[in-house]
Amino acid sequence: MRRFVIGRGRNFLNRSHQQNFLSSSSSSSHCQSRFLSSTAVIDSPSSSSMAPTSSPAITVDSLNPKVLKCEYAVRGEIVSIAQRLQQELQTNPGSHSFDEILYCNIGNPQSLGQQPITFFREVLALCDHPSILDRSETQGLFSADSIERAWQILDQIPGRATGAYSHSQGIKGLRDTIAAGIEARDGFPADPNDIFLTDGASPAVHMMMQLLIRSENDGILCPIPQYPLYSASIALHGGTLVPYYLDEATGWGLETSEVKKQLEAAKAKGITVRALVVINPGNPTGQVLAEENQRAIVEFCKKEGLVLLADEVYQENVYVPEKKFHSFKKVSRSMGYGEKDISLVSFQSVSKGYYGECGKRGGYMEVTGFSPEVREQIYKVASVNLCSNISGQILASLVMSPPKVGDESYESYCAERDGILSSLARHAFNSLEGITCNKAEGAMYLFPRIQLPEKAIKAAEAEKTVPDAFYCRRLLNATGIVLVPGSGFGQVPGTWHFRCTILPQEDKIPAIVTRLTDFHKNFMDKFRN
Amino acid sequence: MRRFVIGRGRNFLNRSHQQNFLSSSSSSSHCQSRFLSSTAVIDSPSSSSMAPTSSPAITVDSLNPKVLKCEYAVRGEIVSIAQRLQQELQTNPGSHSFDEILYCNIGNPQSLGQQPITFFREVLALCDHPSILDRSETQGLFSADSIERAWQILDQIPGRATGAYSHSQGIKGLRDTIAAGIEARDGFPADPNDIFLTDGASPAVHMMMQLLIRSENDGILCPIPQYPLYSASIALHGGTLVPYYLDEATGWGLETSEVKKQLEAAKAKGITVRALVVINPGNPTGQVLAEENQRAIVEFCKKEGLVLLADEVYQENVYVPEKKFHSFKKVSRSMGYGEKDISLVSFQSVSKGYYGECGKRGGYMEVTGFSPEVREQIYKVASVNLCSNISGQILASLVMSPPKVGDESYESYCAERDGILSSLARHAFNSLEGITCNKAEGAMYLFPRIQLPEKAIKAAEAEKTVPDAFYCRRLLNATGIVLVPGSGFGQVPGTWHFRCTILPQEDKIPAIVTRLTDFHKNFMDKFRN
Repeated sequence: MRRFVIGRGRNFLNRSHQQNFLSSSSSSSHCQSRFLSSTAVIDSPSSSSMAPTSSPAITVDSLNPKVLKCEYAVRGEIVSIAQRLQQELQTNPGSHSFDEILYCNIGNPQSLGQQPITFFREVLALCDHPSILDRSETQGLFSADSIERAWQILDQIPGRATGAYSHSQGIKGLRDTIAAGIEARDGFPADPNDIFLTDGASPAVHMMMQLLIRSENDGILCPIPQYPLYSASIALHGGTLVPYYLDEATGWGLETSEVKKQLEAAKAKGITVRALVVINPGNPTGQVLAEENQRAIVEFCKKEGLVLLADEVYQENVYVPEKKFHSFKKVSRSMGYGEKDISLVSFQSVSKGYYGECGKRGGYMEVTGFSPEVREQIYKVASVNLCSNISGQILASLVMSPPKVGDESYESYCAERDGILSSLARHAFNSLEGITCNKAEGAMYLFPRIQLPEKAIKAAEAEKTVPDAFYCRRLLNATGIVLVPGSGFGQVPGTWHFRCTILPQEDKIPAIVTRLTDFHKNFMDKFRN
Repeated sequence: MRRFVIGRGRNFLNRSHQQNFLSSSSSSSHCQSRFLSSTAVIDSPSSSSMAPTSSPAITVDSLNPKVLKCEYAVRGEIVSIAQRLQQELQTNPGSHSFDEILYCNIGNPQSLGQQPITFFREVLALCDHPSILDRSETQGLFSADSIERAWQILDQIPGRATGAYSHSQGIKGLRDTIAAGIEARDGFPADPNDIFLTDGASPAVHMMMQLLIRSENDGILCPIPQYPLYSASIALHGGTLVPYYLDEATGWGLETSEVKKQLEAAKAKGITVRALVVINPGNPTGQVLAEENQRAIVEFCKKEGLVLLADEVYQENVYVPEKKFHSFKKVSRSMGYGEKDISLVSFQSVSKGYYGECGKRGGYMEVTGFSPEVREQIYKVASVNLCSNISGQILASLVMSPPKVGDESYESYCAERDGILSSLARHAFNSLEGITCNKAEGAMYLFPRIQLPEKAIKAAEAEKTVPDAFYCRRLLNATGIVLVPGSGFGQVPGTWHFRCTILPQEDKIPAIVTRLTDFHKNFMDKFRN
């Protein structure tokens, strides 16, 4: 009995269909008359297509098809089986030929025994419970610089309220610290207003996909193999993944000629390609891009008007002396390209590096080269979730500004950091017998190629399974080792891979290698052509 | 030069278009041949519609129109003006007639001086930095029960790794605690497998909208006025908000006859209504639903096959003795309805209640009455973001299981809790002179109605602004008080409101009332017809 108006007054509906609000078809505009017409309401449910007392009407077929399409291999079927096996081992020890599940499926260092950096945790604890900062016992329990840093951070938070929603981009003082960290890393200016703090890198990627994808006619260029966050996010937002292939033969090299070819092929099919995803260091492939290669990519994105989405969450994970991490922002600025030349988003996370603080859900994106109007829309999307968690925000500032020479914690911090990184570096070179694998230059994974005999492929087919998933499932059931099938990341057809993290503790590695080698030998014996 | 296959092998593409991956149009299937054809690549960028060295191609007009449609008033234009004024006050004290900005726009208690509950923060700090748990100084700094609780929680976390990604639904032991808390609250069983821990309630709401909305032909019934998270989320996911009006004349009453009428009107327009949102206690309206009313809503949803999305984040915020909070799950179970009868999602958050821990981004949804296949899809969407932050997860378990009689912290906990709730209750009854307002029975807001003279409406029109936003902007510029215009929540056309939190500290309230009253008087004098 009245029209519905939101966001603007009756006389100000300048943009019609500003939002999809359904207007009531009746027209009296006064609240008081609302219930007068209640007799006109259709009381019988028979006009509904739903049976009146049926079971719930939501079926899997009536869900958003974009959700149904989405796949996320790192937490898929294999992990479900692993969780079941783990429960069986708990309730019935000895029920399997192995006594623990070895999760090599996901970059989750602390779940595999990696310890957090003490300084970071000291600061987080003090910020959670600031009332102990002034107590004398605290000085015995916490390092002097963690106490000082906690005070600094609290002073940056309006009202020292760590339990309050912050600015939607994150606390300004923390963004200042992060921008200073980026400047120190790159040697080029960084603006705190370009930083959007997020609950890890994943929500930041979703945010950009949400902004860029209008329909399935919008494409996003992604490396293959890729981290399935990208395929999942593109599917959820209804876009099209435009694959470009990394070349296994050249250590997973990224050739702009390949990217160009795929871009043109996409255009020929009527796809508007909006952005190029680059993961550097690579996930799952572990390659570290050469600076020259990065320059070619920047040039390409500039020329083609593509947003460069740079996944740089493994920036601290480089294991070969001949390679260095260079951010795409540094590379583009060193080429003389500024705000007006290239749209660039760099993603960083507290989950990776030597910090490995996955459970804290901290991260940021640095957003450069967008117009103020577009920035406003990015801000709006960020604001709909109010803000990211404050502990994650604090941690993001800490990883970009760790202890410095002269700080009380500096030496222990360096020892902890270097211990973690050198352990990862050692594992990165553990090639697996019977399986060919490119050297992991960076990140946290091996992505070896396995040769599967035709008989195994047939057996997989009979089980309606992809051959590499078939392999991983049998491996899990036989050894308790959890890997991710290469098909979850994409691979050249006819080739099969799996992803294995390099994270397990030193003392587990020999067992993993032995079990995997034994399994592989038995598998090959069983399925030899 | 090769086909792209992901997620399943070449021979196993049973469901075609499983995801929108663009296949390269060429057909050779071997990696080795990849670069042989590179001469066939179109090198000239002239075929592109982008100018070769133009500025970035992303404009606001080429963004996802769903994002452009989305509005989020609680962080909209008024807040931007407030942030600018605050900066001006900082850099140039005395530049305005007020000396501070009073944020009454958002339920953000700790930003207005509310202190966190000590016990909760003690536990969080100890879980962040467990290595101090065994130290003797810790016993002097922390309560015995917080130390004990931290141990309990750490024992529930695999490997005591608070820095690891958890199960995508959240740590199982914490979900056990939450389920036990729900059982104690409702007197009906709760299953930890029904709990999905989330970074606050907002991502949980987005998740459900993402699952339910397929196109603009899918509708979600929402109360008007509503919390703009709902309109924003429905817009972002491309659905249609089907409004049902709360009746201001009867204290913002919710009549199922009105809901029924709107449902039928929507159906007549070809909209498939999928779910009904109920916010109880109400936001921004503050009403607490009577149990009888809730039963009618449950009956309605069951009959019509609608998912009941119950926003119950203000369950601890009830200020009138004659009203009690009853969860919709309790109500439906007490009617004899179980899993097979009604699909029900209850949202809870650590941001509200007496805890007010907005910055921690903790919360959960309890999901009941969906088939295993649908549950699997909900799990998949949750898993794409890996997990919610662990501190938020811990806090969600704490608010559902606070200290008990006999615990060392019990008395101080009760004193802190009761102090906060009684302060809120006092503010809830502060009616504002010159403006009519329903009693706030619950939640954290007043939603008063303002009578605006025709001359003010004309003046707003001249400024291309909605009249209530015009009012709020002038109020902010004159007094530093930040309110949210009613148009951000929806209101019956021709009526104007604003939302004001009841959160400011005791000592600020008189100033707010005085300034608001003076402003209102001057405003009316200026614009009197």
